[in-house]
Amino acid sequence: MISKAQKKHIRSLQLKKYRKEFGEFIVEGNKSIIDFIKNDYQPVNIYTTTPDFFGDRNNIIAISSKELKNISLLKNPKDSLAVFKTKNTGKPDLSRPLLVLDFIQDPGNLGTIIRTANWFGWKQIVCSLDTVDVFSPKVIQAAMGALASVQVFYMDLSLFLLDYPEKIYGTFMQGKPVYKENFPEKFALIIGNEGNGIRKKTEKFVQQKITIPKAKQATAESLNAGIATGIILSEVFRKKLF
Amino acid sequence: MISKAQKKHIRSLQLKKYRKEFGEFIVEGNKSIIDFIKNDYQPVNIYTTTPDFFGDRNNIIAISSKELKNISLLKNPKDSLAVFKTKNTGKPDLSRPLLVLDFIQDPGNLGTIIRTANWFGWKQIVCSLDTVDVFSPKVIQAAMGALASVQVFYMDLSLFLLDYPEKIYGTFMQGKPVYKENFPEKFALIIGNEGNGIRKKTEKFVQQKITIPKAKQATAESLNAGIATGIILSEVFRKKLF
Repeated sequence: MISKAQKKHIRSLQLKKYRKEFGEFIVEGNKSIIDFIKNDYQPVNIYTTTPDFFGDRNNIIAISSKELKNISLLKNPKDSLAVFKTKNTGKPDLSRPLLVLDFIQDPGNLGTIIRTANWFGWKQIVCSLDTVDVFSPKVIQAAMGALASVQVFYMDLSLFLLDYPEKIYGTFMQGKPVYKENFPEKFALIIGNEGNGIRKKTEKFVQQKITIPKAKQATAESLNAGIATGIILSEVFRKKLF
Repeated sequence: MISKAQKKHIRSLQLKKYRKEFGEFIVEGNKSIIDFIKNDYQPVNIYTTTPDFFGDRNNIIAISSKELKNISLLKNPKDSLAVFKTKNTGKPDLSRPLLVLDFIQDPGNLGTIIRTANWFGWKQIVCSLDTVDVFSPKVIQAAMGALASVQVFYMDLSLFLLDYPEKIYGTFMQGKPVYKENFPEKFALIIGNEGNGIRKKTEKFVQQKITIPKAKQATAESLNAGIATGIILSEVFRKKLF
């Protein structure tokens, strides 16, 4: 059973304001919930139609499918919905490659970027302060559990990049073809905003502009930000493998 | 000025049923509208806040921003909304590479795939009959005009692939790493459904399974269908370039 107060609280977590106030966020689906638990996120409550799945934890609340439908933000609700505590992320580890997002606005894009970064072994993403909130339910949904093992930092990019000691790459419409670049062990890769790319104030820190070449007959003016990120991370990965 | 009947008609085109009945679809934004006109799509009406942009065509209807807001499907309406006639696509040209989609359900994914295919010079996409309708406003929006120059065919994949004379590739969780494959001049590349991949009935036509390798430490179980497509098309393109 779920109380009225619990329902209200869960609903409030759709808004960034309340996620910040309570330091909590929502994860849906057993697989994703387990991914967050494994990565040391603390569940406040797990509302579930499959209580046996979670064993004898003391924060399990068994609910009906109807109740789940009532609190779920998904069109097709899964098996469970959990409220988790956010974690203090500390500082990025500069000895590993860093993905840097300059004002990504679309939650689906951010989630897909996190899922792709995880696939290719990236552990850290630095977001501009105005990038969409990583704990937004749509981001978590699109990331499909991958957020649990990727650290996301929100920082003033101008300050962060000013002191960043390694090579800084940025994706642009014009630049060195990504296929030709040999990436070092440690570097930062900046991805720009969906409509406008990397901002001037961020661009000035870029040491090497890279681009994804396009076919002569192409009419598209740009690639989706998530797709561009996927292609570049794949290239970096391929070059390490072979 | 826009009439009540026109408003009603435009709204009806949000539904596949009426798009099919009228053989019409909606495109928003001057750039995309021009892309469709350039590619021989016939505009029925162009409702625009910037009539000068379109010169002296006779199907231009000047409207106010308020009227555009009223008929637009976008959160932030652009400058214009046009109703176009669909085109008969005929048959795919088998002398060129073919992208084949096996039950892509998400309109955003289909649109992004079209945009990416266009970027890398692919001209044709064959969709299973149950793939989301390419003239859905969300697909056209995500494709950002690229649909105008990519031909999309809806076919019974089992029948189509049975007679397809070239090599057939499919993307799977297990297979030959895409980085190692040398793609021929002509081939078909099958991309599977977002949740379930390529269906058994389609899989039986696949001659070479390929996969995008992942990092050892990855926890993500799969990549987004659009991202996977982007990475593979980029690999095919890279291999032709270098």
